[in-house]
Amino acid sequence: MGPDGLPQVSLVRRGVERWQAGHPWIYRADLNGDPALEGGEVVRVVDGRGWFLGKAFYSKQSKISLRWLSYEDVPVDTDFFRQRLALADAMRQRALPGETTYRVVHGEADLLPGLVVDRYGDCVSVQFLIPGTEQRKAMFVELLTELYKPRAIVNRSDVGVRALEGLPQEKGVLTGSLPGPVAYDEGLVRVRADLLEGQKTGSFLDQRENHVMASQYAFGEALDCFSYVGGFALQLATRARSVTAVEISDVAAAQLRANAAANKLSNVDVVVANAFDYLRDALDEGKRFDTIVLDPPSFAKNKDAIPGALRGYKEINLRAIQLLRPGGYLISASCTYHIDEQGFEDMLASAAADAKRRVQIVEKRGAGKDHPVLLNLRETRYLKCFVLRVL
Amino acid sequence: MGPDGLPQVSLVRRGVERWQAGHPWIYRADLNGDPALEGGEVVRVVDGRGWFLGKAFYSKQSKISLRWLSYEDVPVDTDFFRQRLALADAMRQRALPGETTYRVVHGEADLLPGLVVDRYGDCVSVQFLIPGTEQRKAMFVELLTELYKPRAIVNRSDVGVRALEGLPQEKGVLTGSLPGPVAYDEGLVRVRADLLEGQKTGSFLDQRENHVMASQYAFGEALDCFSYVGGFALQLATRARSVTAVEISDVAAAQLRANAAANKLSNVDVVVANAFDYLRDALDEGKRFDTIVLDPPSFAKNKDAIPGALRGYKEINLRAIQLLRPGGYLISASCTYHIDEQGFEDMLASAAADAKRRVQIVEKRGAGKDHPVLLNLRETRYLKCFVLRVL
Repeated sequence: MGPDGLPQVSLVRRGVERWQAGHPWIYRADLNGDPALEGGEVVRVVDGRGWFLGKAFYSKQSKISLRWLSYEDVPVDTDFFRQRLALADAMRQRALPGETTYRVVHGEADLLPGLVVDRYGDCVSVQFLIPGTEQRKAMFVELLTELYKPRAIVNRSDVGVRALEGLPQEKGVLTGSLPGPVAYDEGLVRVRADLLEGQKTGSFLDQRENHVMASQYAFGEALDCFSYVGGFALQLATRARSVTAVEISDVAAAQLRANAAANKLSNVDVVVANAFDYLRDALDEGKRFDTIVLDPPSFAKNKDAIPGALRGYKEINLRAIQLLRPGGYLISASCTYHIDEQGFEDMLASAAADAKRRVQIVEKRGAGKDHPVLLNLRETRYLKCFVLRVL
Repeated sequence: MGPDGLPQVSLVRRGVERWQAGHPWIYRADLNGDPALEGGEVVRVVDGRGWFLGKAFYSKQSKISLRWLSYEDVPVDTDFFRQRLALADAMRQRALPGETTYRVVHGEADLLPGLVVDRYGDCVSVQFLIPGTEQRKAMFVELLTELYKPRAIVNRSDVGVRALEGLPQEKGVLTGSLPGPVAYDEGLVRVRADLLEGQKTGSFLDQRENHVMASQYAFGEALDCFSYVGGFALQLATRARSVTAVEISDVAAAQLRANAAANKLSNVDVVVANAFDYLRDALDEGKRFDTIVLDPPSFAKNKDAIPGALRGYKEINLRAIQLLRPGGYLISASCTYHIDEQGFEDMLASAAADAKRRVQIVEKRGAGKDHPVLLNLRETRYLKCFVLRVL
């Protein structure tokens, strides 16, 4: 026990060095012994001589035992978290003025480890990823209610990573009522998101800015692969003459058609197919396009899968380059965390060389500004989105 | 001589492989023997057996002997270059709709090696960097006149790299008349550029989008270091309460004051000082800021200078982080070609760790969309611009 009644966890030298270098995660091997704790506690972090280093959330089951909360010896109470939420919201207000749909809290990158909060207008969707935040659910609901006075707060803690913390998957409405999907604008397109059943917390907010950007480049005959419910396809349709949207799931394809109709976009042809097959067949049939978007799901869930994932990316990107008329645009994304920006760019360069086409990088983008990355924790960077022009 | 009357240059196996991998530059060592040519010619490139590989500009003095023009056996004539210029301009029309000030041609990245063309409204500024383009000056003037009907075309071939090609530095008006500076808008700021005496082709067009972006984040007390004539400082002044602009040159400082006055921005305090000294003194005096911009000139002209350059970058970035109030923004740029994005980010992370501050990466940017990079020629990428939020 420390002077403030908090349990103490002490670090070995390597852990102290890691902490002092600014890493917000401390692994089990860097602790002095095994703390007799349940997990979820805010603890005092000290070095081998008992000197105060800071405060952190403790996790009992995870390999990551400590997640940084503060270097200062301040009370970690409701007011502490209220200030952290306000700090996070202030950044979005400045970066995305006037927006009401955005990621409010992006975990560690907003100094709130184990917490994800997305705002969808007057609704809020939350993920609690570690015992530290799971046990403080009621407090976070109270603070988010205070901040946004939302119509509903939804819990989307139905994610696999919770298992690493010994937590079950959970989903439901925490407060208020949610009679149906929520609607918000992405540029000229009206989007509907089902906060309880949609992907992630209801939608892919990380691609929001990239979706709108895509409309700027779209022209002529456009192709969108891995369309899901149309995040990119509908943007292309606002500018291109025609859009072919390729989506393998019948359910998502039906939703995409409904979304196109709701936006009065009649130039979208939805094809239910495997995108790999579609691209190969289109090439065989001599089809050509002016704008292509590739935004596949992650191809690698772990490091062993990287070579296969790179082969998959190269196959679709090579075919897309070959399918483009000279001067056409390829917007190519990857959310595979295990392939970094450099690795993704190398793959694109190799595809361009194989296609014997000259390819310009017009923009090199990532997730939106509401998905910050901590300078000392690049582990939180995963989304790549290149705007290429194929000559 | 080839069948079309063009001189032939043959590559050794390594050169053929490099050519086929899509590299647009072939070095002297990869040629079969020394061609008996003057330099500046369009040549047929062939492999050891005489098979056609493409066409390129030949340089006699440069280590880079061949610069790719085409894989196809098409005539490289006036119409060829007319099409290349149109292709380049079309990209800017799409990426920057309505703009009349932008880089039209960014050398190899626009398939026009050795040529840089910047458009400033109704004036054009050009750099001819290799004999291939130098000898075709008249043709390019004719084509640019056709395309933009400019009031004046200025030659800004007063750059050191021409020496590598055995070309002298040159500067002057090629056609039309240029009575004084040209004016253009960057967001809310009216900028004046002296096409004959200003930096580069008259101004830093590569930072144009970043200048405007900076206005979005500016608030409170702002500091701009290495201000030059105010590209960032005036943007900050449109939103911040006050701006301190630090510039070492009396001449540039006077121009900055004039630019602020012309824009009716009365909240800019111009300090003539060395930015390194200013940052150190400001910290000693306990000054604090809400927004800081660091946009220094290149710190390393060659690889040997990298360690020193990184020390310089770390010094100014560490001090800037320490000078920021919590929640403040640091916009940190580097145009040092020899330090890549990863190296620059590592330096920033190290500065953040030394400052014991948590730092969010809000945006990771490069040069504007009119400065594309060729996928197989990263050598053309040099500008880094990070938007950081310091907590």
